[in-house]
Amino acid sequence: MAKEIVPGLAGIPVAHSGVSFIDGDQGILEYRGIPIQTLLEEKQCNYLEVAYLLFNGVFPAADELQHWNTLIGRYRILDAETVAVLAALPKGGHPMHALTAAIATLGMLYAAKDQGEPSGRYRTMARLLGQLPSLVAAFHRLRNNLEVLPPKDELDHAGNFLWMLRGKLPTELERKVLDTVFIVHADHTLNASTFAARVTASTLSDLYLAIASAVAALNGPLHGGATQATLLQLRSIGSKAQVGAWVDAILAKKEKIMGLGHRVYKVKDPRAPILERLAEKLFAEQGAHPLYEVAMELERVAKAKLGYKGIYPNVDFFSGLVYDKLGIPVDLFIPMFAIGRIAGWLAHLREQLEDNHLYRPEQIYTGSHNQSYVPIDKRGKQAKTVWSNL
Amino acid sequence: MAKEIVPGLAGIPVAHSGVSFIDGDQGILEYRGIPIQTLLEEKQCNYLEVAYLLFNGVFPAADELQHWNTLIGRYRILDAETVAVLAALPKGGHPMHALTAAIATLGMLYAAKDQGEPSGRYRTMARLLGQLPSLVAAFHRLRNNLEVLPPKDELDHAGNFLWMLRGKLPTELERKVLDTVFIVHADHTLNASTFAARVTASTLSDLYLAIASAVAALNGPLHGGATQATLLQLRSIGSKAQVGAWVDAILAKKEKIMGLGHRVYKVKDPRAPILERLAEKLFAEQGAHPLYEVAMELERVAKAKLGYKGIYPNVDFFSGLVYDKLGIPVDLFIPMFAIGRIAGWLAHLREQLEDNHLYRPEQIYTGSHNQSYVPIDKRGKQAKTVWSNL
Repeated sequence: MAKEIVPGLAGIPVAHSGVSFIDGDQGILEYRGIPIQTLLEEKQCNYLEVAYLLFNGVFPAADELQHWNTLIGRYRILDAETVAVLAALPKGGHPMHALTAAIATLGMLYAAKDQGEPSGRYRTMARLLGQLPSLVAAFHRLRNNLEVLPPKDELDHAGNFLWMLRGKLPTELERKVLDTVFIVHADHTLNASTFAARVTASTLSDLYLAIASAVAALNGPLHGGATQATLLQLRSIGSKAQVGAWVDAILAKKEKIMGLGHRVYKVKDPRAPILERLAEKLFAEQGAHPLYEVAMELERVAKAKLGYKGIYPNVDFFSGLVYDKLGIPVDLFIPMFAIGRIAGWLAHLREQLEDNHLYRPEQIYTGSHNQSYVPIDKRGKQAKTVWSNL
Repeated sequence: MAKEIVPGLAGIPVAHSGVSFIDGDQGILEYRGIPIQTLLEEKQCNYLEVAYLLFNGVFPAADELQHWNTLIGRYRILDAETVAVLAALPKGGHPMHALTAAIATLGMLYAAKDQGEPSGRYRTMARLLGQLPSLVAAFHRLRNNLEVLPPKDELDHAGNFLWMLRGKLPTELERKVLDTVFIVHADHTLNASTFAARVTASTLSDLYLAIASAVAALNGPLHGGATQATLLQLRSIGSKAQVGAWVDAILAKKEKIMGLGHRVYKVKDPRAPILERLAEKLFAEQGAHPLYEVAMELERVAKAKLGYKGIYPNVDFFSGLVYDKLGIPVDLFIPMFAIGRIAGWLAHLREQLEDNHLYRPEQIYTGSHNQSYVPIDKRGKQAKTVWSNL
C-alpha cells in the first residue's frame, strides 16, 4: 500500500472547530477568538461564563448569565443513586477511575431520558458541567469516611468545589485562584482526550459515554499526568540548593524536566505567567509554599541552561503548587484538570454532533494471508510465553 | 490552511496492525491471516483459542491452551468489591453504561498493581478477557434481584456466560452457537471502538480505561447498535406476509433496512452464512424462532429488489435471532458484542503500546482572532437560546 502512517496523526486535521486556537510559535491561546490573557484580566469573567462562551461562541448577557449560573447550580446537586455508587467504589482506587464510573452512572440515570427530548443534548451538557466538581469532591469525602457536603447557592463553581471538598469556606483569593486554574484548563484544541471524546461520540454514543472516554484518555501520564509529576519532581529535588546538581544529573541522563516545555508552545506558555502571579498572591496570603523557591530556582537554572532551546515553564509548573497550597491531594490533580477541561470537551462534542461523521480510519496491514488452520497436535510450543508465569 | 479534512478519516491509515484483515470487495475476513471460515470449520477452535491467536499471532500448543483456559477461568471469578459496585448501580440503566462503570471499578482495584509488575500488561489482558462475561451476567442477575452465580470450571467461555446469565446449563449446541457468535465478533480491523481504545491508550492511560473507552464507543447506534435495531425491525414487520409492503414503504421513504449491507463489505459478509447455518440448527433443536421466516423473506425480497447494489445480509441479521432464541434480552445485545470484541481490542492495544505515539491530531480553525472582551452591560441578548427552557 502506498499510503503512509503519520505517527499520532501529528499535523493531520480531523475536525473543523471554532472553540479554541493555539499558535505555539507566538505563544497565543484564544477561546472563541479571545486571547486567554484578555479573559483573565477582566475581573468579571469566571469559569462558568467562560464555559458558556466556549459552548455558544458568545458571552451571555446579564440575565442569561444569571439563568446559566442558576441552571448549573441546580445540576451541582448529586442524586442519592449516584452517591450510593460513589460510596460503593473501592476506597483505594484512583479518583479518575472513580470519575469514569460515576459519569457512566449518570448515563444510567439520564442518558435515555435526555435523548428522548429535543433539548436533551443541552440538558446533558449542563448536567455534566455542573456535576463534575461534586462527583470528585464526594468521592474524596467518602473515601475518607467523611460526609458528602451539598453545594451552597452563594458560592460559584470553584468556590463550591473547595467547600464540598474541604468542608470549610474558601477565602476570596482561594476561590479566584482556583477559578483561574479552571479557566486556563478549559480548552486546548484537539488534544488526545478531546479527540477520544469525539471518536466515541461519532458512533452516536451518548455524551455521558463520550465524556467517560475523555476522562479515560486524560488519565494518561502523557496527557493529564504532568501536573502531578511536576509537583512530585519538586518534592524529590527537595531544596533550592539541590537544584543545580539535580538539573545537571537529569541532563546527563537525557531525561525530561517536568513542567518545562510543551509539545505545542515553542515560547512561554501564555497561561503560565497568569498562574505564577496568582500563586505568588496566594502564598502572600496563606504563607509561602516550601517548594516555591525550588520551582523558581529550577526555572532560573533551566532558563540559563536550556532557554535557547525554547523550554519555558508551562501551566503544570505552577498549578501543582497552587493545588497543594489549596489542600488538594496529589491524586486529585488530574480530576482538577477534568473539571476545567469538561467545558472544552462538551463544546467540541456539540460541534461533532452538529456535523457528525463516524471515525472509521484504516490500518496498514502487516500480517500474512490465507493461512491454514494448524491442528492442535501439530503446533510448535514456545519455550516461554508472556503468559507462562501468570 | 491548505490541508483538508477527510470526514471520519475514511481511507486514512492511523496504525500498523497484524491482528485482522478485511477485503470488502471479495468478502474476506482473516484473523492473523486465517480466513474466518477456516477458523470456524474446525471443530476444535473455540473463542478463547481465537483470543490467544489474536493476542499472540500464533495458536497455543496443547499444554499452552490448557494453561490459557485455566488462567482465563481464574479471572472469570468476580471480586466481592466489584459485585458490590454492580449491586449499587441503578437497576434501570443500560448494561453498556454498567459495563463501563464496572471496568473502571476493576481499574480501581488493579490498575496500579498491574502497572507495578513486569507482566502486568498481560495479566490485565487476561483479567479483562475473563471478567467481561461475568460482569455482564452479574449486572443482569442483580437488576432482576437474582443471586450472582459463580462460573463453573467444566464450562468454556460461552457456556459459562449462558450459565451465569440464565442459571441453567446450556445444551452443547447453545454453547457452540454462542461461541461462534463471539468468534465472528472478535475483531474487525480499525473500527471506531478499537480506534477509541487506541487513542485513549496512546496517552499511556491504563488498559482498563482504554477498554472503558472502547465500550463507550461501541454503544453508539452507528457501531454496536445494529443487532438490536435489526431484531426490533423484524419485530415491527411482524409477519412474512408484511415483508413486501414493508420493504416498498422503506424504499419509498429512502430509509435504511437494518441487517443488510455493510460499510466495508460489497459482497456477502463472510460471517453471515456461518451464523445462518448455526441459527437453523438451533431452531431445529429448540423450536423455530417466530421471526426467522420474516428474516428469510426479508433477505429474499431485498435480494430481488436490491441485490445488484451489493446489499446482502450482514452478521447482525442472524445474531439478533440467535440471541433472542438463547434468552438473551435485547439490551444485552451490545454487551454481547463487547464480550466478543474485547479479544480484538486487547490485541490492538498490545500493538499500540509496543509502538506508541500519542494521538494529537490537528483541527481546521473556523473562528476569529484577537477579539476583545465584551463587558457584561454591552452584550447583546439573544431572543431565545437552547438553554432558555432548561
